[in-house]
Amino acid sequence: MSEGLVKSVPAGFRAAGVTAGIKASGLPDMAVLAADVPCAVAGVYTTNQVCAAPVKWCRALTPCGDGRGVVINSGNANAATGEQGLADAKRTAAIAAETLGCKPEQVLVASTGVIGRLLPMPVIERGTTAAIAALSRDPAAFEAAARAIMTTDTRPKVVNLRKAIGAADVTLLGIAKGAAMIGPRMATMLGFLLTDACVRPDDLRSILAFATDVSFNCLSVEGHASTNDTVLLLASGQGKPLEGAELETFAKLVQEACQALAMAIADDGEGSTHFVTIDVLGCRTRDEARAIARTVAESALVKTAIHGADPNWGRIVSAAGYAGVPFEESQLSLSINGVVVYDRGTPAVIDEQALSASIRSQRPVDLVLQFTLGSASSRFWTCDLTAEYIHLNADYTT
Amino acid sequence: MSEGLVKSVPAGFRAAGVTAGIKASGLPDMAVLAADVPCAVAGVYTTNQVCAAPVKWCRALTPCGDGRGVVINSGNANAATGEQGLADAKRTAAIAAETLGCKPEQVLVASTGVIGRLLPMPVIERGTTAAIAALSRDPAAFEAAARAIMTTDTRPKVVNLRKAIGAADVTLLGIAKGAAMIGPRMATMLGFLLTDACVRPDDLRSILAFATDVSFNCLSVEGHASTNDTVLLLASGQGKPLEGAELETFAKLVQEACQALAMAIADDGEGSTHFVTIDVLGCRTRDEARAIARTVAESALVKTAIHGADPNWGRIVSAAGYAGVPFEESQLSLSINGVVVYDRGTPAVIDEQALSASIRSQRPVDLVLQFTLGSASSRFWTCDLTAEYIHLNADYTT
Repeated sequence: MSEGLVKSVPAGFRAAGVTAGIKASGLPDMAVLAADVPCAVAGVYTTNQVCAAPVKWCRALTPCGDGRGVVINSGNANAATGEQGLADAKRTAAIAAETLGCKPEQVLVASTGVIGRLLPMPVIERGTTAAIAALSRDPAAFEAAARAIMTTDTRPKVVNLRKAIGAADVTLLGIAKGAAMIGPRMATMLGFLLTDACVRPDDLRSILAFATDVSFNCLSVEGHASTNDTVLLLASGQGKPLEGAELETFAKLVQEACQALAMAIADDGEGSTHFVTIDVLGCRTRDEARAIARTVAESALVKTAIHGADPNWGRIVSAAGYAGVPFEESQLSLSINGVVVYDRGTPAVIDEQALSASIRSQRPVDLVLQFTLGSASSRFWTCDLTAEYIHLNADYTT
Repeated sequence: MSEGLVKSVPAGFRAAGVTAGIKASGLPDMAVLAADVPCAVAGVYTTNQVCAAPVKWCRALTPCGDGRGVVINSGNANAATGEQGLADAKRTAAIAAETLGCKPEQVLVASTGVIGRLLPMPVIERGTTAAIAALSRDPAAFEAAARAIMTTDTRPKVVNLRKAIGAADVTLLGIAKGAAMIGPRMATMLGFLLTDACVRPDDLRSILAFATDVSFNCLSVEGHASTNDTVLLLASGQGKPLEGAELETFAKLVQEACQALAMAIADDGEGSTHFVTIDVLGCRTRDEARAIARTVAESALVKTAIHGADPNWGRIVSAAGYAGVPFEESQLSLSINGVVVYDRGTPAVIDEQALSASIRSQRPVDLVLQFTLGSASSRFWTCDLTAEYIHLNADYTT
């Protein structure tokens, strides 16, 4: 099963991915990421008012300096499950803690799958124990974990970076899942980042918050913010924490990893045939630029036009127009795959056939909305909307 | 062609619908609604920053007390067309004014169709003249106008009401179009209401603004706010304007007409197989209730679940959770077609097969989200999302 996605495992971590039996498909559905020593942990979570039990559990525990592991299941979101759901999340942490030799409060949990169903606890208990028994520092074990957290993903999402920071040779390994219900507002789907850098919990939290904001928060498949969005960053490094310029270098490494995972999620959007990058340039603020990018990214009319290789750019400028950001039409120009189609409020003369062919011929599509309002910008990632997305989602639980 | 949709024509109006030749399909594409006497006119328009030239023209002219007619074309939106677009809108009004014997500023214009193309002015000029020559007070002429403003609509949308108000026997006739790019924020698509009531322009404006807010603003197909949204209300009545309780009775009549047209648009949503009514009850404010209803209505995951007759209610409560309205899960219950599926934060025990069958067996679907936050509510209309919608929109301009 190993595709060689993982080259360098950060010191101090082991992983496992197993088949517990939650999914009817018989595919792997539980993973554990374990730290050999207490490590710094930061987390960012969904802002959905209906948030999953594991999100409530993790939110109460992070940031912290003594995390020992994360138990993750796919196939069941443990969301909208009331008090019983919270008890089940805590029970999962307690089972893992017993075997890992720590307190339940040192174990984080995450779930993804169908909303509104109670966890099958006997299955979860057996799966947790089996995964901990299988823990290994072999790269293949981390890849198995990346596969075990997948739901409708067609492939595992892994990022693996190394960088010399001061005297330290820092390794960063991240895994993520998500192909639908992707419309993060403050965090996103599931993402787990492991590093052997030594970083204080508070620094880790602010680094992760910013990295998430310029990566997972710039991502949408269909704009539906999940109940389970969780990104955790665990740092196992011992000794003197990173400071100053070294900390900034580490923060950039985390951003790079988060952006790679966010792009991988958009590129694996359910049923998609195109991966779309939207650059909104020349705005007053980054928030305004992102609001415009998000509105364009979430328009079903824009997404279906791209799917049809249809250079119907009126749908793009009209989506920008209802993003809640004031502008004059003469302050906007638009290009698609490098071709200017709308020039400061006026339609440009274009070869529609050639532009359509350029969209049809490749998976990536680039949209650039150039404003003359200021100097702030935002880059956003999404995918097109296809009949296959409809088929996948018209019959998911029953 | 007449289906008998129009029974009572308000006094003082004539109409026509003709084929000018804008649409490649050869279907009717221009309509004129003309008033024999100067009449009171109110309008509400899109809040999109990229708004069509005819919207700019109308917005500058309403409310007014001396309107003489409306020229409408389908097949071309005259939006994102710069200065030339505005000149073309004005020229259209001028041509009509010449034949009607009034000033251009007494003629309103509206357009719907593809964005970003200049109007074919020779065709528009011939069509305007032909439509004015064909003006008639025959009910069939108003039905022809309702057909001529259609784009991807599968049927004309007409509402025709009569009510005794004080000494007056008031007739109200409304027509509308729209099947996609439907996500009104302050107004919507195209809607035209004619009445023989006598109402002051300022009263007409406030009556129309409120009626629009509880009708077209509670409607979404895919949430993409159009550049051309326009609703106009023309009142031809002469003599003493309605006041007090009579004015309120008239306002309710206008609301009823607007809601009937809004429901007709949702029910004709592109590719739809279900018409969905969402009631959000027990909220702090009507705006909060509507924000939740809109978020549920615009979730692709909710819409595809309904299409698949899938009682996957987690998608509905999770959509409510990211609407930006604070609540606790224990303050929310949800029912689908009368079956409680989520009861104050906890999953209810349901017969999924029976609920799925109830969704599959009928076009209307009713969702009720009951909160315990207050006493405000909102009713919202939408449709499901189908592969047919994708096919219709993946290849529209090319």
